[in-house]
Amino acid sequence: IPLARTVRCNCIHIDDQPVRMRAIGKLEIIPASLSCPRVEIIATMKKNDEQRCLNPESKTIKNLMKAFSQKRSKRAP
Amino acid sequence: IPLARTVRCNCIHIDDQPVRMRAIGKLEIIPASLSCPRVEIIATMKKNDEQRCLNPESKTIKNLMKAFSQKRSKRAP
Repeated sequence: IPLARTVRCNCIHIDDQPVRMRAIGKLEIIPASLSCPRVEIIATMKKNDEQRCLNPESKTIKNLMKAFSQKRSKRAP
Repeated sequence: IPLARTVRCNCIHIDDQPVRMRAIGKLEIIPASLSCPRVEIIATMKKNDEQRCLNPESKTIKNLMKAFSQKRSKRAP
């Protein structure tokens, strides 16, 4: 068991503000790993390419996932 | 209504092979937009940083989402 390990998470500040699905250009999900013990969710906003770290436990993310699955059922013509 | 629009999707080939959650270093979800009419899911593999486009409709993705939500409930000590 290593006594110390360098923790390298991407997110320092987790943004708990609600985010609109339509405002997101890209959503990155980074699973927990040896370098960072928590799941990280990074949203890149369409408007200004700003990156925001979202709380995986938040309703926002649950709603986003739901929105994705709803979109999935609609196929492009 | 524009008659023609340049379609710029990231994914050309969609990989329907099953992917292990643990093998994924990063998962990118790109919502449908004017530039690409479909949701795109890009997995970056831990091993070699290879990027694979996954099918949003596949069981793999549904299982991945489930795995994420299960991981979410376990907190790092």
